[in-house]
Amino acid sequence: MFSLAIHGGAGAVTRETIPTSEDPLFRKGLRNALDAGTAILSTGGSALDAVEAAVRTLENDPLFNAGRGAVYTKKGVHEMDASIMDGSNLKAGAVAGVRNIKNPVSLARKVMEESGHVLLSGKGANEFALKVKAEMEPDDYFYTKFRYDQWLRVRHTDFYHLDHIVSEDPDRKFGTVGAVAMDAHGHLAAATSTGGMLNKQYGRIGDSPIIGAGNYANDATCAISCTGHGEYFIRYAASFDVHCLMEYKGLSLEEAVRTVIFDKLKVAGAEGGMIAVDAKGNISLQFNALGMHRGFRHSDGREYVALYNNE
Amino acid sequence: MFSLAIHGGAGAVTRETIPTSEDPLFRKGLRNALDAGTAILSTGGSALDAVEAAVRTLENDPLFNAGRGAVYTKKGVHEMDASIMDGSNLKAGAVAGVRNIKNPVSLARKVMEESGHVLLSGKGANEFALKVKAEMEPDDYFYTKFRYDQWLRVRHTDFYHLDHIVSEDPDRKFGTVGAVAMDAHGHLAAATSTGGMLNKQYGRIGDSPIIGAGNYANDATCAISCTGHGEYFIRYAASFDVHCLMEYKGLSLEEAVRTVIFDKLKVAGAEGGMIAVDAKGNISLQFNALGMHRGFRHSDGREYVALYNNE
Repeated sequence: MFSLAIHGGAGAVTRETIPTSEDPLFRKGLRNALDAGTAILSTGGSALDAVEAAVRTLENDPLFNAGRGAVYTKKGVHEMDASIMDGSNLKAGAVAGVRNIKNPVSLARKVMEESGHVLLSGKGANEFALKVKAEMEPDDYFYTKFRYDQWLRVRHTDFYHLDHIVSEDPDRKFGTVGAVAMDAHGHLAAATSTGGMLNKQYGRIGDSPIIGAGNYANDATCAISCTGHGEYFIRYAASFDVHCLMEYKGLSLEEAVRTVIFDKLKVAGAEGGMIAVDAKGNISLQFNALGMHRGFRHSDGREYVALYNNE
Repeated sequence: MFSLAIHGGAGAVTRETIPTSEDPLFRKGLRNALDAGTAILSTGGSALDAVEAAVRTLENDPLFNAGRGAVYTKKGVHEMDASIMDGSNLKAGAVAGVRNIKNPVSLARKVMEESGHVLLSGKGANEFALKVKAEMEPDDYFYTKFRYDQWLRVRHTDFYHLDHIVSEDPDRKFGTVGAVAMDAHGHLAAATSTGGMLNKQYGRIGDSPIIGAGNYANDATCAISCTGHGEYFIRYAASFDVHCLMEYKGLSLEEAVRTVIFDKLKVAGAEGGMIAVDAKGNISLQFNALGMHRGFRHSDGREYVALYNNE
């Protein structure tokens, strides 16, 4: 038995804000990521390999704000964050503010496996990338006309574009991608990757590279990947809280995710969502925003891909 | 009623590793920090102001690895991390890898109050510091002969010096400082600051600036500041776990801190310690290392300062 869930960001995702022509492209992108992950899981591969593969696929798709297609910072560059966690041994790796890295999630995995650390940042993380021969790409690779034009409109302002703001702005695109999986051996893993906020400055780090905030995995309970207003997800240790609600209060995966997304984050004014699996193969995809790019696939044959509130 | 607890790092702190001449200096430094915090708490000031003042005092004391007295990175500079959290509203601020900032904890507070973000890093965080006119100091200010000589001996190696390693190396100094407080209004706050690891590279970020890992405060339960092997404190979301054990399992402060420090971190192989207060004014100082620079003061007149296992 295996299960896999993915997301491509939450926010003002509605039929009104997503151009009709892009709807099938987003769904195709999500299916491609599910394909990459299930190719590994269905042949007995590990949850860790599956979430990395699924997130790499989303990073390589310029439609999503992670890897290729990342938004521009105030200085007009791409600074990306990613993390990965192995629920079988609670090992984790993450990078923050890296540039020119084709697949930040794979660099996060190298941090986990080869650095002796959990979180590397900025130029230092890029030096580590050179040492471990991470795949690099020139700035051009990360260019997308849509994101560049978006940045040109806001670069002279202090405006920054969060994933989470409920906005009817037709320019809205939604950041952060993630994957969670349970493999045939009962192990869990989670991975998250983002291009961050449009026009971000001051080396802001959101929840995506923070273990326990935007990403967490523990075979005893759950694997979680988040998307939304990162500052709140950090302050509420959103993904670790799901683990604790299951471990200490005995809540089910569905109840624990609902508690954090609605009773805590929504009440606090934070918009976002979460994808989660538990060690029994249960899957939960919940969000308090208008929509969330999301999908899952289960070894029992169920498959689901959706963008908006109900479809 | 108020209570205040502080730490100046945990590790191989024994009568054998601390020079006899330095023993009273460390105790004096800890008392100075308690004085700074209690001056605020005893006149009805806020826990938030008190933990900031206590940590500023420790940052200004070159004996402690935070602010002045910070260790050198592999490149021979000082890169500091700090965080602060207000338990009354769960707001938080943090900085990672900042340079030339006299009091990183006060910059973390500015991040909380003026940036709209929780965590700023590297050069970007330094730009924010200029914008908010944070007090800056030249590299010379952070120079200490002891730390510089220490760095000269290891700079050409891949050696890095963690707070947590049980070592009889007489060079050992111990990083990270922190403060937690409950004020007369029943509000809690926590602050943590560090110069990081000697000879650190790759922009490594430890637990000190990570909310839920090295620092956490919530009026409903506890305020926590950690010191030790940061990577483990991140992976175990150490400070948020204490909150959850109290909130969801009903453990006392003492039981919750003991569970995390001994049953979880020590079992995982992580050395370190924690200081904690709860909303009833209870105080807990626990560590699984040989010693921890620590102290507390309570409005009922109790005062305690200790360095080693028992004294």
